[in-house]
Amino acid sequence: MTSFTFEKLVIFGVGLIGGSLARALREGGRAAAGGIVVGVGRSLATAERAKALGVVDEVAALDDDDALRRALGGADLVLIAAPVAQTEPLLARIAPFLGETTLVTDAGSTKTDVVAAARAALGASIARFIPGHPIAGRESSGVEAALPDLYVGRNVVLCPLPENRSADVARIEALWRAAGAEVRTMEAAQHDRVFASVSHLPHLLSFALVEQILGEPDAALKFSFAAGGFRDFTRIAASSPEMWRDVCLANRTALLAELDGYAAVLARLRAAIVAGDGATLETVFTRSREARAAWQERGAQASGPAGDLAAK
Amino acid sequence: MTSFTFEKLVIFGVGLIGGSLARALREGGRAAAGGIVVGVGRSLATAERAKALGVVDEVAALDDDDALRRALGGADLVLIAAPVAQTEPLLARIAPFLGETTLVTDAGSTKTDVVAAARAALGASIARFIPGHPIAGRESSGVEAALPDLYVGRNVVLCPLPENRSADVARIEALWRAAGAEVRTMEAAQHDRVFASVSHLPHLLSFALVEQILGEPDAALKFSFAAGGFRDFTRIAASSPEMWRDVCLANRTALLAELDGYAAVLARLRAAIVAGDGATLETVFTRSREARAAWQERGAQASGPAGDLAAK
Repeated sequence: MTSFTFEKLVIFGVGLIGGSLARALREGGRAAAGGIVVGVGRSLATAERAKALGVVDEVAALDDDDALRRALGGADLVLIAAPVAQTEPLLARIAPFLGETTLVTDAGSTKTDVVAAARAALGASIARFIPGHPIAGRESSGVEAALPDLYVGRNVVLCPLPENRSADVARIEALWRAAGAEVRTMEAAQHDRVFASVSHLPHLLSFALVEQILGEPDAALKFSFAAGGFRDFTRIAASSPEMWRDVCLANRTALLAELDGYAAVLARLRAAIVAGDGATLETVFTRSREARAAWQERGAQASGPAGDLAAK
Repeated sequence: MTSFTFEKLVIFGVGLIGGSLARALREGGRAAAGGIVVGVGRSLATAERAKALGVVDEVAALDDDDALRRALGGADLVLIAAPVAQTEPLLARIAPFLGETTLVTDAGSTKTDVVAAARAALGASIARFIPGHPIAGRESSGVEAALPDLYVGRNVVLCPLPENRSADVARIEALWRAAGAEVRTMEAAQHDRVFASVSHLPHLLSFALVEQILGEPDAALKFSFAAGGFRDFTRIAASSPEMWRDVCLANRTALLAELDGYAAVLARLRAAIVAGDGATLETVFTRSREARAAWQERGAQASGPAGDLAAK
């Protein structure tokens, strides 16, 4: 177990992601000397729900200057765990109250836009912002869905900036390792291409299938016969619309490139179906099946996220 | 429990689907008086594996005239449970050995093409062919994956022909009910439209995502970060390539219509992303999420397939 100590962690957005980190540090028994965890919500009500559930020690509302100053006073760590479109206004809002040595990280699903937002909001303080992304989504959201072991064995990607001190990056790495995660680093643009492909596009495609059926005259009949294949394929269509709206727009360049590449694959498969070209279909399906089986096999051996087949 | 008796059921293709029906009848305790179950494989080896596992009582190989005549002698029921492209050659092969009163049904995922194949192969005996489709796929295939309770609470669709006697349709209904299934009837063309939408298209889309990633230069990196969303979305890309090749070709008209409708939805979402139109994205995602949640809720209340959330 990693030995990790902190004085005060302030989490902006105590939902699934922020709440699970709080629970990991406070309940997981991994933090050598757990400090205070403060939850800040858009309204005091959401933050107070987190406190009532025992997820955080103290709460504050974002629109209350005095409460915000008190919350950030003495904080060594800040986590932004809100939909990515809120990164810039959130950072701009808290910048005046940030201490000189407070480190700030985030949990956004996209990184290029978050870095740009942080540069705009923090100016010369950008050196103290270490961009991050825990790969631990579930289709459930909200603090009620938070789990102390959500990050155990999961990947957290950090995308350090040239301005970051390596000791500060190491401290954010230690924070996530204390929650049980594996930490990997990557350049922001590369991060966005990878997750456009393996996460953002599948979410868009899943929402799109339900949308398509809804638009058809026999939608009710079709839903009544939907079974296991539909269930798995659309599980991620139960995800937060607000979060995924933001991700699609924040990562639009990489996402559009992946979407166009996907449309080209579909066009190739369509042509094979029209031509009655079973050999091409079988070749593609076999290759896909084998690649997916190899991926699952690697995951089953590793402690990474792919191995956690029981998790949502 | 349904009271159901049979003398001899001959299953052509003892894999997941055929093997599970055999196990349901022989082990499920539902058949009031279980008869003999004979498994016929393309080779004797596959059928003998089913016998060694205790799934069937007797076996025969398709290419052995004498064995086939013995297998079908005294059979009251025949199930064709092979990839749909094999329906016509299989029925043509067994037609000379079919008794006057033997009823034949199938388990194919498509029905218009199966009906055409059956008419071509059976000629005047078409009245004794009752087309069927158990909605109980898993990504596992083969007789080792067969389960005695695979059909419990699942839908089986029958698409009776004008030539069928209603007593014969009722007997095939009783066969599936004896395995625990709910039986619903539907016209073949309607069946093919419904399943193109909720099953065949999602399988094609799932194979296509893995194929797309495989074609990219950073495929290994992308797979290494794929997590829960990718896992669920591509679970059905682990399905049998041969089966899905046949389904795509057999149901090409309905599948192409659904694929084109889906491409139109993707084009609409693409335009919204390009335009930065977050309102449209959020509206679509919210509508999809709610429809999917309502579907799951109905399934949780019903005994139908959607309720079986734990099953693969």
